[in-house]
Amino acid sequence: MNQTIKTQLNHRTIRAFKDKPIDESIMSTLFDVANQTSTSMAMQSYSIIRVKDKNLRKELGKISNQIYLEQAPELLIFIVDCYRNAMISEEQGLVQPAKHDADRFIQGFTDGAIACQNLFVAAESLGIGGVYFGSILNNIEKVIELLELPKYTYPIVGLGLGYPDQDPELKPRMKTELKVFTDKYKKQDSYLESLKDYDKILSTYYDLRDTSKTVAGFTEHVKNVLNRQNPNRLKAFSIIKKQGFDL
Amino acid sequence: MNQTIKTQLNHRTIRAFKDKPIDESIMSTLFDVANQTSTSMAMQSYSIIRVKDKNLRKELGKISNQIYLEQAPELLIFIVDCYRNAMISEEQGLVQPAKHDADRFIQGFTDGAIACQNLFVAAESLGIGGVYFGSILNNIEKVIELLELPKYTYPIVGLGLGYPDQDPELKPRMKTELKVFTDKYKKQDSYLESLKDYDKILSTYYDLRDTSKTVAGFTEHVKNVLNRQNPNRLKAFSIIKKQGFDL
Repeated sequence: MNQTIKTQLNHRTIRAFKDKPIDESIMSTLFDVANQTSTSMAMQSYSIIRVKDKNLRKELGKISNQIYLEQAPELLIFIVDCYRNAMISEEQGLVQPAKHDADRFIQGFTDGAIACQNLFVAAESLGIGGVYFGSILNNIEKVIELLELPKYTYPIVGLGLGYPDQDPELKPRMKTELKVFTDKYKKQDSYLESLKDYDKILSTYYDLRDTSKTVAGFTEHVKNVLNRQNPNRLKAFSIIKKQGFDL
Repeated sequence: MNQTIKTQLNHRTIRAFKDKPIDESIMSTLFDVANQTSTSMAMQSYSIIRVKDKNLRKELGKISNQIYLEQAPELLIFIVDCYRNAMISEEQGLVQPAKHDADRFIQGFTDGAIACQNLFVAAESLGIGGVYFGSILNNIEKVIELLELPKYTYPIVGLGLGYPDQDPELKPRMKTELKVFTDKYKKQDSYLESLKDYDKILSTYYDLRDTSKTVAGFTEHVKNVLNRQNPNRLKAFSIIKKQGFDL
């Protein structure tokens, strides 16, 4: 146990921020941390768009439907970036067969996601809080348009950062035994049975957080989420193709 | 600056490990850290396969073509796991339209990738070193077979961990100005020009690491990588569909 791990085990999503900017020198350090993250085949196939413009924030806020996206002192959008490397090879006068293949897309997606989490850990170690915005993917085409993302790029996730103006409870997770297996994938005889205790723990957590609603456990939450589909989000792979990737 | 960030800025890939196991109590803490990582819509759509079996290691080593995959004291394979949540909803007697849609796949991929990096940071904070194995994706179908991955699951990346038996130089990255943009994606007039300094830095780095080879800078490395395609890896999206996802 050390301070790094203590902070990681104490991770909570922060959605309310103090009206206090993050120093430019800190942002610069956070970008250096992202930059030092492992990267597949040293290709560095991701980029970060730091969204400062108020109008852009408003538009992205509409897409995500989360008001705190507009309010977070910093908003970073991590993207798959195979454009840079494609241009590097084109400038050398060669048509490169792999510059936008399926494998490059996956490589860039993993690169960008792990860089984002690495930066997030660094931020939290400095007392900064944050929230992931998967919700920017509610309208991927609009995000591409707003951020002027060229071919061979694709948005992965957004990250809002700022000094916390709330101190939420730790959100309980299911036991690691249900998600860490040895050698082979392990199915459960009954998931409802295996998750019985977690259902109780989570429903108590939600109950304490908002006493005005009837609250479900995990298994009911999963059922509810899997009953909803956002037609825009189902277009993901057709948009990835439209961005020039050969899937 | 603090210890967390110092360690992150000092990240190097470790490929040679001491013959010393990682204590079970430490592994348990690392899994707790992964478990506390942010997760899209609280769905926890990923799992971890910890590969201990020697034969499995050998088979995975053949796929990745990296001998140190077999030698790392710990090998963790992170997977998209939408199977668990699909079963949770099926057990409740309902056919859930979203249980294996494109959006769920992306959600699980992001969840798994960020959990992996979070665990990796915790490991490094304890003096453990590690290496990502994107190379397990050289033969995705075989990985699925070996780890008995059910429908609605998919391998993301492997992570090897152990106590370092080497102290490699820090591998330089391109300047953050080339990958962090404000508000809009920023194209370069000439990438070869913008990357001139980095080309020199990286070629010096490679030169020091292995004096027996002629070494290229970054832009030549990119060109070389983009000239190669592994036919197996191009099948990624057809295999994702075969695993039951509606892309």
